[in-house]
Amino acid sequence: MKALGVAVVGAGRIGELHARHLCGSIEGGELVCLVDPERERAEKVARGRPVLDSLEQALELSEVEAVVLSSPTDLHARQIEQCAARGRAIFCEKPVGLELERCERALEAAREVPFQIGFQRRYDPGFAAARQALEQGRIGRLEMLRSLTCDPAPPPIDYLKVAGGIFRDMAIHDIDVARFFGGEVVEVTAVGACLVDARIAELGDVDTACVTLRFESGALGVLQAWRRAVYGYDVRAELMGSGGKLVVEEEGPLALRSYRGEGVLSDFYDGFLSRFREAYRLELAAFVASVRAGHSPTPGPHDAVQALRVALACAESLKSGRTVRC
Amino acid sequence: MKALGVAVVGAGRIGELHARHLCGSIEGGELVCLVDPERERAEKVARGRPVLDSLEQALELSEVEAVVLSSPTDLHARQIEQCAARGRAIFCEKPVGLELERCERALEAAREVPFQIGFQRRYDPGFAAARQALEQGRIGRLEMLRSLTCDPAPPPIDYLKVAGGIFRDMAIHDIDVARFFGGEVVEVTAVGACLVDARIAELGDVDTACVTLRFESGALGVLQAWRRAVYGYDVRAELMGSGGKLVVEEEGPLALRSYRGEGVLSDFYDGFLSRFREAYRLELAAFVASVRAGHSPTPGPHDAVQALRVALACAESLKSGRTVRC
Amino acid sequence: MKALGVAVVGAGRIGELHARHLCGSIEGGELVCLVDPERERAEKVARGRPVLDSLEQALELSEVEAVVLSSPTDLHARQIEQCAARGRAIFCEKPVGLELERCERALEAAREVPFQIGFQRRYDPGFAAARQALEQGRIGRLEMLRSLTCDPAPPPIDYLKVAGGIFRDMAIHDIDVARFFGGEVVEVTAVGACLVDARIAELGDVDTACVTLRFESGALGVLQAWRRAVYGYDVRAELMGSGGKLVVEEEGPLALRSYRGEGVLSDFYDGFLSRFREAYRLELAAFVASVRAGHSPTPGPHDAVQALRVALACAESLKSGRTVRC
Amino acid sequence: MKALGVAVVGAGRIGELHARHLCGSIEGGELVCLVDPERERAEKVARGRPVLDSLEQALELSEVEAVVLSSPTDLHARQIEQCAARGRAIFCEKPVGLELERCERALEAAREVPFQIGFQRRYDPGFAAARQALEQGRIGRLEMLRSLTCDPAPPPIDYLKVAGGIFRDMAIHDIDVARFFGGEVVEVTAVGACLVDARIAELGDVDTACVTLRFESGALGVLQAWRRAVYGYDVRAELMGSGGKLVVEEEGPLALRSYRGEGVLSDFYDGFLSRFREAYRLELAAFVASVRAGHSPTPGPHDAVQALRVALACAESLKSGRTVRC
Repeated sequence: MKALGVAVVGAGRIGELHARHLCGSIEGGELVCLVDPERERAEKVARGRPVLDSLEQALELSEVEAVVLSSPTDLHARQIEQCAARGRAIFCEKPVGLELERCERALEAAREVPFQIGFQRRYDPGFAAARQALEQGRIGRLEMLRSLTCDPAPPPIDYLKVAGGIFRDMAIHDIDVARFFGGEVVEVTAVGACLVDARIAELGDVDTACVTLRFESGALGVLQAWRRAVYGYDVRAELMGSGGKLVVEEEGPLALRSYRGEGVLSDFYDGFLSRFREAYRLELAAFVASVRAGHSPTPGPHDAVQALRVALACAESLKSGRTVRC
Repeated sequence: MKALGVAVVGAGRIGELHARHLCGSIEGGELVCLVDPERERAEKVARGRPVLDSLEQALELSEVEAVVLSSPTDLHARQIEQCAARGRAIFCEKPVGLELERCERALEAAREVPFQIGFQRRYDPGFAAARQALEQGRIGRLEMLRSLTCDPAPPPIDYLKVAGGIFRDMAIHDIDVARFFGGEVVEVTAVGACLVDARIAELGDVDTACVTLRFESGALGVLQAWRRAVYGYDVRAELMGSGGKLVVEEEGPLALRSYRGEGVLSDFYDGFLSRFREAYRLELAAFVASVRAGHSPTPGPHDAVQALRVALACAESLKSGRTVRC
Repeated sequence: MKALGVAVVGAGRIGELHARHLCGSIEGGELVCLVDPERERAEKVARGRPVLDSLEQALELSEVEAVVLSSPTDLHARQIEQCAARGRAIFCEKPVGLELERCERALEAAREVPFQIGFQRRYDPGFAAARQALEQGRIGRLEMLRSLTCDPAPPPIDYLKVAGGIFRDMAIHDIDVARFFGGEVVEVTAVGACLVDARIAELGDVDTACVTLRFESGALGVLQAWRRAVYGYDVRAELMGSGGKLVVEEEGPLALRSYRGEGVLSDFYDGFLSRFREAYRLELAAFVASVRAGHSPTPGPHDAVQALRVALACAESLKSGRTVRC
Repeated sequence: MKALGVAVVGAGRIGELHARHLCGSIEGGELVCLVDPERERAEKVARGRPVLDSLEQALELSEVEAVVLSSPTDLHARQIEQCAARGRAIFCEKPVGLELERCERALEAAREVPFQIGFQRRYDPGFAAARQALEQGRIGRLEMLRSLTCDPAPPPIDYLKVAGGIFRDMAIHDIDVARFFGGEVVEVTAVGACLVDARIAELGDVDTACVTLRFESGALGVLQAWRRAVYGYDVRAELMGSGGKLVVEEEGPLALRSYRGEGVLSDFYDGFLSRFREAYRLELAAFVASVRAGHSPTPGPHDAVQALRVALACAESLKSGRTVRC
């Protein structure tokens, strides 16, 4: 069977990763071209494939059967519509967009094409195994959940200006994790503070946030997001069930411990690219496999919209100091 | 220097433990008598010391220089006043009481005698070392905290009827942990659910609760309490600071792992008595040492009152669905 | 720069792995053809590349610039000579052979071509980081070492008949690990027992073995090999140095722990393919990169010969019950 | 039932510990007097009990029903005989002595009185639980064992002069651990090196040693002893069985991890007193309980002699470079 031809739009850190994966390490998928107006950066990433200036050009190529959107968030909705109009399968980095109505419109337009949203944690082997264990009844019925994400430092302030705030940009992963394990979220209550960088407060945003949530099932959850883990990139999930608990905690890339005068020392992940290296490859492999097999990829449009809806409710709760229904 | 003579009031599980500690394993403290109307139970615990029916009788004995109150919560306030009136040092199990005003009145009456409240986690070697590391600046300024307590199962329903609800009975330890590390709490937002036992809902109580809180310092926190950890008694704390993170996590009593066909297996604590075995001894040893040295014991009356105040605010927030100032 | 064309000889488990890696996940290397007389098995692995019956045929193809020998051990020496005579770079699975003199002769014939031996542990991220830490002086001078390998079960008895015994087949990895960290080994003392399968004793072999060794540097070491770890594939190394200790211990593929009534459970590796998945890819990537760059690959012929020499000394010590100089 | 009156002979580190335990924390046992010619040191430890110059004086006291010998090793045999002649129960620190014949003679003289040897690891909760799991068949039949002891640094050279060498002084604990789990040892092969302090070599001793051993059962074992673990006091045991593996590994006293820029840091035990704190208390409590109940204490005279026998065989093997039957 012929490999699926893919165009990658956006040659930033994550676009580069997707492009690299499509040059060999994903079975059945192959990079056709790279789209980025910053040609120099794109050339480095393209491994000899053509670099194009616009998505339109890529959509002209019949070999392009699917498109990976790792462009800036504010372009996603329009690009989804373009791809959908030309019948191409779409893999879109999270979030689809910052406004719910705009996203829903774009996803409505894309309802006839395969669509996957880039919530890669679902493909992390630890998270995936936890989900499987949960489905197999290993811990009974879920009663409480905790999801934590800590970035080593805030991203550049210019990025934060357009990122949509801590919930849509960062905690949206925890929200998706919550939904992945617990199903739909019906209400959230958020508190936040700006403790790391005062400029973040000037944007009306926070860098430290805690959210409690209630699932449709009746279970409760806690999400925490923090932009100053000087020790690295820290992601954890804890699932408390009526029959036990599951914990997904991966601290470092190396099975090496050093015993020295100051104690026992081990390494920690330095960023999301190292922590979720395998997950990024597996999510794209799953997308490629789904498209080729004619299955709906997952997580899909509903997951993209619902996570955004919960993120917006968090933001509203943070502002109002009240519990908000999603 | 002569040992401090101590009367223990109440020969339940925790009273028995205190009595045992005062029969040898606490330097400078000695059990004088045990007070419990249920004589049979008390005789077993008393190790040959006299068993008395009432606190009054114990306070008649000049050798009784200090009193440990491990009686039912609703007796604490009155007994504190009795001890204080007779000039005896007081160690009181948590909580001092269920009503703030009543507790404050009792503690006001006791302001001239040494008073320590039984928040034993402060004396757990791991928690104590975390506090020391925090004070030494090892993780900079505290920005976020998480404290978790999971009981293996709900206590008997008759106990729950008088225990004052999950916040005053159980999460009060997490509240004290929060204050121990983060200072005063200024607002809380609580959610809760009754998932474990429907009779708990009939009492107007919950068995699963999540709280977000804000410290006076600006830092944030999350508390979680849950009454169904089928795997054991689970207590954790996580302190995120501007310069690093501290985690207090002790899973089991044994340094033993079993490698078998089903995987790698290790043990978990079965209850608070095993998890905090050393802490219970150390808190009482500290009380005895403080009284003998003429120092104020810690945690003291202010800590008792403030934890109760925050617990009450949590209960109010749970009911109202709104953030509550403490 | 053009990719290096590689022929893989032998389509068994490890040959299949190398072939797969050369179809995309190793930059700069590309599978040209697969050599295996069992065509059916080979076709499955070849991913559309030609399947040839003999190495001779592969060496006729000018695109074949390097050869991966994952054929049966007794063919290695002859195949090395064939490849060398035709000037091809060689990656050879361990061991090069069972007889020292024969191996030395083959490697002498290959002294003009790039040669790498398949001691993949050197490329495991944990082992590699330990070596780097050792070289950086993180634990001072090495004084004692321990290397452990446990197989879940003995391989098929027909394999064992030709595998050369536990030291040349299995502990040779521990021997290479010892040399990787501690340099040359000057004497060994081995004990062994047949505890797992009596048929192994009939072959004159053992399934459980312990070796003490002395390095040229004066340091000591312990190697342990065992063929019955019912819980999985267990590999560990411990490096004790004058300034600290390094431990390489990787228990399972998943960052997932289950907390259940019976305790805390985590997963364990089920075999060498999962434990050293990344190492197998990295060793071949390093080979390809070395050949393309014109560097000598590592571990090279000297490492192949020395490990075999030590393995033979172990076997002799086991038989004689005496310390043997290597 | 009356408490057992105990005299402690020798007020060094370990004698002080035993004396302290007998002043409250061991039920049913009570310190009667302390024997040490260095009165000043002894007074500090005696907590008000009389300090005597000689064992003879203590044996005159009828309240002295049992004697703890924590005197220098070369006095043990004679003191055992004295205690036995006066019918007193004996707890003797390891080793009973340095010469096998002398020890056997002393223990023969003591065959009518309760006798326990101070191999405290058997009472460590982790080691004890491992033994219980082994007896319950949790890992089937033992096939291989590893025991490791690392001291942070060599003891003072003057101590080493009379300590009898690394096997009788230090590895004797590992030998007892081996016997505890695996039964009788029938042969040993030892290698050693002096890497830490050249003065140790001048004494004819080593500071780094590895031993392989064979049990009567057919199982194999490895012991390692090392006098330079700069990170602390490191004791580990690994039991490989036909049905699984047990590992006893306790790294530090605190359930605290620090996450900082340099990685994740945790504490390590600084010495045997902290690592085996509980074990020292439990072994003495078991001795007291056995004597009071009229049971034979364990480990007993046979264990004392056999461990010494194996230690001497190790020393002989080290000298001769050959396997030695025990």
